[in-house]
Amino acid sequence: MKTGSMLYEGKAKKMYATDDPAVLLVDYKNSLTAFNAQKKAEMEGKGRLNNLISSRLFEYLNKKGIPTHFIERIDETRQLVKKVNIIPVEVVTRNITTGTLCRRLGVEEGMILPSPLVEYYLKSDELGDPLILEDHAILFNWSTREELDKIREITLKVNQLLKEYFEKLDVILVDFKLEFGKDPEGNLLLSDEISPDTCRFWDRSSGEKLDKDRFRKDLGNVLGAYQEIWSRITSKGE
Amino acid sequence: MKTGSMLYEGKAKKMYATDDPAVLLVDYKNSLTAFNAQKKAEMEGKGRLNNLISSRLFEYLNKKGIPTHFIERIDETRQLVKKVNIIPVEVVTRNITTGTLCRRLGVEEGMILPSPLVEYYLKSDELGDPLILEDHAILFNWSTREELDKIREITLKVNQLLKEYFEKLDVILVDFKLEFGKDPEGNLLLSDEISPDTCRFWDRSSGEKLDKDRFRKDLGNVLGAYQEIWSRITSKGE
Repeated sequence: MKTGSMLYEGKAKKMYATDDPAVLLVDYKNSLTAFNAQKKAEMEGKGRLNNLISSRLFEYLNKKGIPTHFIERIDETRQLVKKVNIIPVEVVTRNITTGTLCRRLGVEEGMILPSPLVEYYLKSDELGDPLILEDHAILFNWSTREELDKIREITLKVNQLLKEYFEKLDVILVDFKLEFGKDPEGNLLLSDEISPDTCRFWDRSSGEKLDKDRFRKDLGNVLGAYQEIWSRITSKGE
Repeated sequence: MKTGSMLYEGKAKKMYATDDPAVLLVDYKNSLTAFNAQKKAEMEGKGRLNNLISSRLFEYLNKKGIPTHFIERIDETRQLVKKVNIIPVEVVTRNITTGTLCRRLGVEEGMILPSPLVEYYLKSDELGDPLILEDHAILFNWSTREELDKIREITLKVNQLLKEYFEKLDVILVDFKLEFGKDPEGNLLLSDEISPDTCRFWDRSSGEKLDKDRFRKDLGNVLGAYQEIWSRITSKGE
């Protein structure tokens, strides 16, 4: 597959055209950003680990019947995906309370929720990704009722699958962010990435954070945490 | 009805006990506050107008079968209401886009929505009344699914009734905030007030703002706008 021109550079990835118009090449960057890119850093090896982790998790989800954009990993930092139009709604699923949820709503940290909480945020760096209602998304044409119903259904399945997957690795899936897109035929596909940049992972026995919170909160050993997730996946994961 | 001790002083009203434990006396203050009380003023006559307007609107809603806390107005600034436990969820209904909605979500001002938008905000001055999902309210025990279903149903009825009411006064009901409470028997009652402090009213022909936005935006003649609403109610309203 020949790499064409760069189509888009995001905070964590670059997207390139390929010789197949339906396929994009994603190159994972070493950039780390937090708090809507107010905090930034470069971390050698981060792009590689996220590409490895996300590829493996998307392969697992594909195998379990989740419709995703992922085609295949081609090397250490790059993967091929189906070209989609991204729906500008970020989907956050929470199993345990932490982060902005607790700050915004004044609720206790670390509460295990009786059922997963699914939240939608408008994908807009300019506006700081504000929380939205389904009704906002529908009224302002960011998505449709039918799409959101399907997105919610897929999201809850993905949550169940990933929770089980990480339980076997002695990792608690605290929360995570998903994005969805539509291919030219109108099929809804899970897109973007699933990695320690987009998930909160806690070690089951120690509670140690194994994700981007180490960067957000200056806890040190950020790359070590990402490496630890990848090591557990390769030693115990599917 | 003898006035007892003051139970609570809010930004716009004082609540007093009465000789009936199920009844409270509400005294409307002249204070105007905006932006979570960062902007404040006193305005002689404002309390009187809001008490007159809100009493008349609650009488109208009572007559139309909406369950409310309102009993009767007793003088220019005071009214009697049933004692309720307020549900800590503010219910905002929007017919036309404006205000925080446009700032938060980057949507155009003045769009007429194809159907009314109902939003919930956590009633918390400390947290700045953040937007919440129904699922937040349920998971964190601020309300229940059943209550929220009933609240939504009543809110949409109130919107329809008030829209019609104000259309006859050549006033457009742009948006408004409601609060609900539960009496000791568990009945859900529309509570708080309905006034130019809690609604956006636009004159139908000129588009002139006839509500607290005159104070928020320093448009001048705040009291005149409240007086105009009351004059139209007494000359043309039920």
